[in-house]
Amino acid sequence: MHLVAYLKTGPTARYDGGWRHPEATLDDFLGAERYQQIARTLEAAKFDGCFFADLLGLQDIHRGSYEAVLRGGGQVSYLDPMVVLPIMAAATRRLGLGATLSTTFHNPYHLARWLGSLDVLSGGRAAWNIVTSATDLEAQNVGMDAIPPKDERYDRAEEVIEACCALWDGWDDDAFVLDKRNGVFADPSRVRYANYEGRWVRTRGPLSIPRSPQGRPVLMQAGASDRGRDLAAKWAEVIFMVQRTKADLQAFYADIKGRMGARGRAPGDCAILAASTFVIGETESIARERADYLRSLVDPDIRQARYSGHLGVDLTRLKDGEDIGGLQANQGIHGSRMVLEQAMRDSGATLPEAAARQGDGDEIVGTPGSIADRLQDLFESGACDGFIVAPTYFPGMFEQFCRAVVPELQRRGLFRKEYSGTTLRHHLSS
Amino acid sequence: MHLVAYLKTGPTARYDGGWRHPEATLDDFLGAERYQQIARTLEAAKFDGCFFADLLGLQDIHRGSYEAVLRGGGQVSYLDPMVVLPIMAAATRRLGLGATLSTTFHNPYHLARWLGSLDVLSGGRAAWNIVTSATDLEAQNVGMDAIPPKDERYDRAEEVIEACCALWDGWDDDAFVLDKRNGVFADPSRVRYANYEGRWVRTRGPLSIPRSPQGRPVLMQAGASDRGRDLAAKWAEVIFMVQRTKADLQAFYADIKGRMGARGRAPGDCAILAASTFVIGETESIARERADYLRSLVDPDIRQARYSGHLGVDLTRLKDGEDIGGLQANQGIHGSRMVLEQAMRDSGATLPEAAARQGDGDEIVGTPGSIADRLQDLFESGACDGFIVAPTYFPGMFEQFCRAVVPELQRRGLFRKEYSGTTLRHHLSS
Repeated sequence: MHLVAYLKTGPTARYDGGWRHPEATLDDFLGAERYQQIARTLEAAKFDGCFFADLLGLQDIHRGSYEAVLRGGGQVSYLDPMVVLPIMAAATRRLGLGATLSTTFHNPYHLARWLGSLDVLSGGRAAWNIVTSATDLEAQNVGMDAIPPKDERYDRAEEVIEACCALWDGWDDDAFVLDKRNGVFADPSRVRYANYEGRWVRTRGPLSIPRSPQGRPVLMQAGASDRGRDLAAKWAEVIFMVQRTKADLQAFYADIKGRMGARGRAPGDCAILAASTFVIGETESIARERADYLRSLVDPDIRQARYSGHLGVDLTRLKDGEDIGGLQANQGIHGSRMVLEQAMRDSGATLPEAAARQGDGDEIVGTPGSIADRLQDLFESGACDGFIVAPTYFPGMFEQFCRAVVPELQRRGLFRKEYSGTTLRHHLSS
Repeated sequence: MHLVAYLKTGPTARYDGGWRHPEATLDDFLGAERYQQIARTLEAAKFDGCFFADLLGLQDIHRGSYEAVLRGGGQVSYLDPMVVLPIMAAATRRLGLGATLSTTFHNPYHLARWLGSLDVLSGGRAAWNIVTSATDLEAQNVGMDAIPPKDERYDRAEEVIEACCALWDGWDDDAFVLDKRNGVFADPSRVRYANYEGRWVRTRGPLSIPRSPQGRPVLMQAGASDRGRDLAAKWAEVIFMVQRTKADLQAFYADIKGRMGARGRAPGDCAILAASTFVIGETESIARERADYLRSLVDPDIRQARYSGHLGVDLTRLKDGEDIGGLQANQGIHGSRMVLEQAMRDSGATLPEAAARQGDGDEIVGTPGSIADRLQDLFESGACDGFIVAPTYFPGMFEQFCRAVVPELQRRGLFRKEYSGTTLRHHLSS
């Protein structure tokens, strides 16, 4: 079983309102210590890694303003994760470290250089969560009129990934000679140009970044659409899935492993992880009451604002029964739409109602034992290879999970007690 | 007097061959500890700050190949400095931290976000060394055919800086309320869009990065051409000058302060620092012999390769007496051309000869006392406001300078004994 933590450089990551919990730390989200400490906590629990979700801007689709998001403590990536990850690398030795970076807004040389630098500096622990981005607000921040059409974004993404791999593969191992006496620092014959020429991107190389102990960064992906699944089946070594029910998870899992097989990849070449968050109590009733308490902290408007952002439409402008298709077609995240459609089917709610009520649907509530039962069942029934663990409140929920749930998983022989290697790619393959 | 250290993420920074010194550390240039340790050393000596020079690629102009540079240990920025600076921020509390980032290859939203993140995370210690870049090899790495013409680069640079400032100025101080009970996280009225529309760049905002303790990152610049000087006079708070002789330094210094005055800026608004490196000995004769020894470590071909890169022409292709103007007009760094022209005037050498023999011309050789005499004289005679200190060999020369020369400057009342504030902008103004 693989465990990867979901983080944001803000007070709230996925669970809206978590920042209002009495034990949530707030005055530290702009400093180094918060991030170094959570990295140490996750490494002590032998997590495979962690990664930061990200957005290049402030969500302002809901009511046409960022007001709700800022006032209510919605999900904002305050610091650039690429500034936070190196300090986490310096505080740890084994934990994988993932960054979300967009193939639509960055060129491959920069991507390969940042991620390659993090990979080398961390001794082979970097991951790249590949996104194509989905909002006009981000596009307008970087000078575009609007986000390009989805097919164009995915076409470009393929080329960006190919170009990055060409750059990373431009260095052989052991290129450095370091012979002071004869003045031979490196062996130039172990370095090559990339000379990548695509329709959307070009890069020449060579990269200035030598090969890392894991060769190149681990590739992560979270696409739920058909194009997203194809990209993931071709490239991803970690997939983050947002499906809600066991049946939906199993269907997605089987679909991806099938697409991988069709491309000649073995099932073990990619770990498919289910997004999850936890409400943990000493007893079931404590856990249930804690879950109710946490839900009471969530302003429905914040939740709706988040879904306005994810869907790319202002849900307050929807008329009764109107579908989002009529308002906007290009922006938005397929996975969030699926989650809401499931909730509408289950409850008969309208879309804005479902958005206001709906978390990400991935809360697992219980004692450490009953939570381990649930994780074991999902893991052993072909629903997933492990879990993306997102916090309700920070850092308390991670601490509870690491202290109480992880040891239970270890006792059952489901999760490692020690790291058996040094790189993230090794953790994921063992 | 202000002191700023010049660093690279490789074994050699400015002094070619320094990596071959017996005490130079070599096995650590891809890890965190090297950079955290030098940051602690510089902070203990009360340096204003440090910054990393950078290049987005491997120099391959000389003989049309990167072979000489890699084999001979030429100057390469292996790791991306933006990955190294955060770990130095986490290891220190007062030292300024500067990154070189190009206005030609990056858009203002990304620049403002990275630099703003480093500025916030470090508690107001970030600086941006603004470059417009000067090589086709970098342009081709990011997908362009060639580096744009100089005037276009500078036109764009002006807009990029304006846009970054608009983004940084979009947050007022004290935007965070952090009221858990009432669910008020931040005050949206303290945040504004940038809505910057230039000819070359556009960005909407708001940035996700709150205002740092120093407001926004300190702006650095090193341009020596007329356009570069104008840009510096308008924006720069630190200038890095490469002139060689006292008279040339004085002329540059007076020119910049005059241009600043014409724009209504006070002389104290910008610290003009002279590039320098040091060979320090217990006696003058030890220092002289050490300087000879260090020079013996430099392969002339490496030095020529560096100037081929700086000038944007392959010096091995120059015919006897041919000027570089005939080969190439657009690439190259004006300051390096000036240094070589001075050397040719002084020695009667040809351009390739001068390049093969010439360091940066900024070595100061002596005892701690005679070096302090020289720095005091330059500082008190209107030649500079302080020094950019580059290493000969790393980290030994910095350690010698911090242990022996800095205390001498402090005894003379020329340099601070303690920091009187927390931000880089404060250090530079006091």
